[in-house]
Amino acid sequence: MTDPTRFPRLSRIDSPADLRRFDEAELPAIADELRAYLIESVGRSGGHFGAGLGVIELTTALHYLYDTPHDRIVWDVGHQCYPHKILTGRRDNIHTVKQRDGVAPFPKRDESEYDTFGVGHSSTSISAALGMAIANARAGNDRRVVAVIGDGAMTAGMAYEALNHAGGMEPEPDLLVILNDNRMSISENVGGLTRMLGRLTSNKALNTLREGGKKLLGDKNSPPAKFVRRWEEHWKGMFVPSTLFEEMGFHYTGPIDGNDVEQLVAALKTLKGLKGPQLLHVITTKGKGYELAEGDQIGYHAVSPFDPSKGLVAKGGASKPTYTEVFSDWLCDAAATEPKLMGITPAMREGSGLVRFSREYPERYFDVAIAEQHAVTLAAGMAVEGAKPVVAIYSTFLQRGYDQLVHDVALQELDVLFAIDRGGVVGPDGATHAGNLDLSFLRCVPHMVVMAPADERECRQMLTTGLRHQGPAAVRYPRGSGTGVAAGNDLDTLPIGKAELRQQGARVALLAFGALVPAAEAVGRELGLTVVNMRFVKPLDRELVLALARDHEGFVTLEDNVVMGGAGSGVAELLNAEGVVRPVLHLGLPDAFQHHASREQLLAEAGLDVDGIRSAVLARWPDLAEPQRPVAAVGA
Amino acid sequence: MTDPTRFPRLSRIDSPADLRRFDEAELPAIADELRAYLIESVGRSGGHFGAGLGVIELTTALHYLYDTPHDRIVWDVGHQCYPHKILTGRRDNIHTVKQRDGVAPFPKRDESEYDTFGVGHSSTSISAALGMAIANARAGNDRRVVAVIGDGAMTAGMAYEALNHAGGMEPEPDLLVILNDNRMSISENVGGLTRMLGRLTSNKALNTLREGGKKLLGDKNSPPAKFVRRWEEHWKGMFVPSTLFEEMGFHYTGPIDGNDVEQLVAALKTLKGLKGPQLLHVITTKGKGYELAEGDQIGYHAVSPFDPSKGLVAKGGASKPTYTEVFSDWLCDAAATEPKLMGITPAMREGSGLVRFSREYPERYFDVAIAEQHAVTLAAGMAVEGAKPVVAIYSTFLQRGYDQLVHDVALQELDVLFAIDRGGVVGPDGATHAGNLDLSFLRCVPHMVVMAPADERECRQMLTTGLRHQGPAAVRYPRGSGTGVAAGNDLDTLPIGKAELRQQGARVALLAFGALVPAAEAVGRELGLTVVNMRFVKPLDRELVLALARDHEGFVTLEDNVVMGGAGSGVAELLNAEGVVRPVLHLGLPDAFQHHASREQLLAEAGLDVDGIRSAVLARWPDLAEPQRPVAAVGA
Repeated sequence: MTDPTRFPRLSRIDSPADLRRFDEAELPAIADELRAYLIESVGRSGGHFGAGLGVIELTTALHYLYDTPHDRIVWDVGHQCYPHKILTGRRDNIHTVKQRDGVAPFPKRDESEYDTFGVGHSSTSISAALGMAIANARAGNDRRVVAVIGDGAMTAGMAYEALNHAGGMEPEPDLLVILNDNRMSISENVGGLTRMLGRLTSNKALNTLREGGKKLLGDKNSPPAKFVRRWEEHWKGMFVPSTLFEEMGFHYTGPIDGNDVEQLVAALKTLKGLKGPQLLHVITTKGKGYELAEGDQIGYHAVSPFDPSKGLVAKGGASKPTYTEVFSDWLCDAAATEPKLMGITPAMREGSGLVRFSREYPERYFDVAIAEQHAVTLAAGMAVEGAKPVVAIYSTFLQRGYDQLVHDVALQELDVLFAIDRGGVVGPDGATHAGNLDLSFLRCVPHMVVMAPADERECRQMLTTGLRHQGPAAVRYPRGSGTGVAAGNDLDTLPIGKAELRQQGARVALLAFGALVPAAEAVGRELGLTVVNMRFVKPLDRELVLALARDHEGFVTLEDNVVMGGAGSGVAELLNAEGVVRPVLHLGLPDAFQHHASREQLLAEAGLDVDGIRSAVLARWPDLAEPQRPVAAVGA
Repeated sequence: MTDPTRFPRLSRIDSPADLRRFDEAELPAIADELRAYLIESVGRSGGHFGAGLGVIELTTALHYLYDTPHDRIVWDVGHQCYPHKILTGRRDNIHTVKQRDGVAPFPKRDESEYDTFGVGHSSTSISAALGMAIANARAGNDRRVVAVIGDGAMTAGMAYEALNHAGGMEPEPDLLVILNDNRMSISENVGGLTRMLGRLTSNKALNTLREGGKKLLGDKNSPPAKFVRRWEEHWKGMFVPSTLFEEMGFHYTGPIDGNDVEQLVAALKTLKGLKGPQLLHVITTKGKGYELAEGDQIGYHAVSPFDPSKGLVAKGGASKPTYTEVFSDWLCDAAATEPKLMGITPAMREGSGLVRFSREYPERYFDVAIAEQHAVTLAAGMAVEGAKPVVAIYSTFLQRGYDQLVHDVALQELDVLFAIDRGGVVGPDGATHAGNLDLSFLRCVPHMVVMAPADERECRQMLTTGLRHQGPAAVRYPRGSGTGVAAGNDLDTLPIGKAELRQQGARVALLAFGALVPAAEAVGRELGLTVVNMRFVKPLDRELVLALARDHEGFVTLEDNVVMGGAGSGVAELLNAEGVVRPVLHLGLPDAFQHHASREQLLAEAGLDVDGIRSAVLARWPDLAEPQRPVAAVGA
């Protein structure tokens, strides 16, 4: 329940229709309430913070002026959607964001009819909105379509592809793209586009000037017009277009102050009446209205629960390092010994653990903006010249560079190392950020070496192994921390294609990949089974698997990847190729997109915790439940 | 051997070093010889024709002025590389292009040190060249790097991502991008960028003007300068930049006539001395110098062998229709009954069979340019509004839209049909165009229905099935023609997840997917085995497979996809999930990138022709070679 004393207006807004019953003059007050409510609720729940604060006024103005859900708003990046969710019936649940059965942190079609398109990865909104606009036009619907895209999302190729298509179409599509320019994606934005937007922003009067300039030249007797007439056939080319967007065929308006609801309402009223592809450039401040967040936009991008009156407090005590931190340390240590190492990130400096590297090795650090395709092929180009590029990327975003991995890296056997974070179950960010498919889509690619570490130390060894290996390699590690094993400072390698026998047991061998090794080991110990840390998804340890086949009656494969085409499937292929016939039980993620919940919850739901694994093994081999046999731990 | 009488200069050029020994004044004559030679040799061999003819002068000038292979030239699109191959030691072999063991139709790193980067898919060159430039700069190498990119390739998002990165970098990378603007990719180019380039081209004096304009304004007492001073702080914004490339941070030169070797040499000499990211815009004519090709740029993009004195002659006689033609007819027939059907192609109108549809249903036809990411998400947006989008795409190019297929279509269960041409073994275009991975990377995606037709009629049925199915579906068919079965005019569907028992035999069941059904049937008939046309890669026909398991001692899976994670692997997963233990022999493509050769040659090499399949089956079950048993054909 929303306190009507503190939120006299917002507490009465259960849908945009309620919002539209207010007088326009009350919008600033509504925006203020919305901002206060967001600060309070995200403070309580944690979640994405700064982006939502920046679009309070824009969200309010859009839902006020457009007839949602009949009209369509596509939010991109999706994490700016919290105020939208509050205004569209989810006010009293927004504090459940990212929790199991709670509100999703991104727009989600099956959560609300106001969530028109699930934008979890960025930069999809113009394509989606254009598709909607076209389909509506062809069907004779009078819906309006608005895409709200962050300037960080505008660096991705697919946003440009969509601009190119929309701007060149005949007949012109009716579409409004709002460029929400806050000079930030998660880190600061980079690249030529950002510089261009900065130029536009620093010349706020520019657009007025250009319009004015054209009018001035219209006076035939003015001296400038005389000058221009000398070049008459060219003058249009000189004065219009002047922005990328106009080059591509959009009508450009802006920049305007996107944190001023009155300016926004005025501009949107005009734009609603215009036909063809329109681009409105608004300048907003990420974290707007919460001083600490305005001052630390990266730190407040997404937060754990905190007390808004105090702000974020540094966590006390030494917790286990995350895999991201293990990678971060390794990268700097490896760079110290390997001068050809280059670190590449597509706009994920913080998330992928490149902050320290970017400071210590700025000349070898490349943030290429949200541009996964380019990131991968840039690395391939570097490798051509003998450099040792490391592409640090989230599993889910590597899907954006898949063709480049296949065609530019693997096919040419170029020496690129992929450090794939957030492999497997990711959790609270939901299905859009899950890394459940990577072992399947990587394993089928020829020439790839694919590794999955069982613990932090092995992660470090695998990264070194991949770096030293002459050819494409990938190390895929999970979100969060591991078993707590000290990663150490060594730069030692592992033999490629060799698994580690963790425990010699009897009857059934558990072949575990990556993050599932500890749970497999626990079950194996309990039931007296053989346990193998497989280490390599590709190439598999053929000799070991065949040797185990000789004295085991069956196998269990375990992985935090979908079973379909995953690492376990590779084991079955190997046995089938050798003509070895044994029962194989594949444990892994289901053939479904998992909803958001904690990583532990999702693993348990998939039957990949100790209880789930034990149950599945006993369901297949019930007599293993008999009293335990003594077990020989290997090398322990 | 190259006839020294007819080619007095070219016959002496075995490498660019030989070219550089000629006097600059002889370059036009060398270009003429190179053009005549290319026409003759491609006429003899077939291959890509028009693009190469357009870059004769550019190729000559680049190798003359740059110190190749020390300096790097990246050709993009790759099919413009034939003149480059002729000048770099492959003159006498160019007639073997696309043949097994012959010259590859794209740059190929292991073919020549002059082929710096294998560009088979387009739009990778700026990323690759930037990677090279950075790595060279960091290593202190003095190599120059040049990317030659077609204007068609410039529409792809990754080209823009690379421009954004290169143009925004500090320190500035030294890199020359040559935009080879011929207004064509394979079809005519589309989109806002094309319109912008057209504007630049129609104002050939524009650049001169802009430079001149700036100088004029420098005279403080001129009337224009007075005007400008009134807006002093803004004038830079008004006059520079004026092209997309300058917006992104490149220095733009052009446009110049790219078929005039003297102009090219003059421009390149200047640009060689400049630092930072440079863009040279050259205008060329595709098919230049061969009148018929200039007049029919699409028809002469790639050709079968022909007599240059006569030109291409329409093929006589009725040959079997290709799968592309089956799709083409189906699309128009389906559009007639389904007004919500929309057809989308990423710049492959001819290749994907959309020519007729584009004429008959122009308002429902969308060529989005080379922009696979956008193509997929555009379709998702259309599906949101209830349209029935069909994305016609080559298997290999779908890799570029993989994230969009997963994240935008499958995750949201949107109703998009993928008509995937060139699935499986493709052949003469080589590994860059192979469709060997698609069943693996599609099968692991939740919610997907994945079909592979055994013949033309079934292809049509599957397309209709996918269209009627509410949700994401893919039909994946091979290059070329099928068995010759009449596709018919019906729009009937198949039951989803149901296979077709083709022949009831004994002991071993052959489970064949798609194009391998005929060969499986031949072997099955010969050896008296059960043969199933599986039809659905996902969902598999669980009931049938389990029923067969009851009265067969083993299975053979057959597919023209890599075995790793492929359809056969799905069968093994199914059996393992059910606890059914049977030997399974997986026949499919190897875990390797196949070189270029004919489709038949590659299938035979992979053991997927009748002989290969028979041998593999008998190697696993030698006693099947005993005298044949009578066999009951099902429903035939």
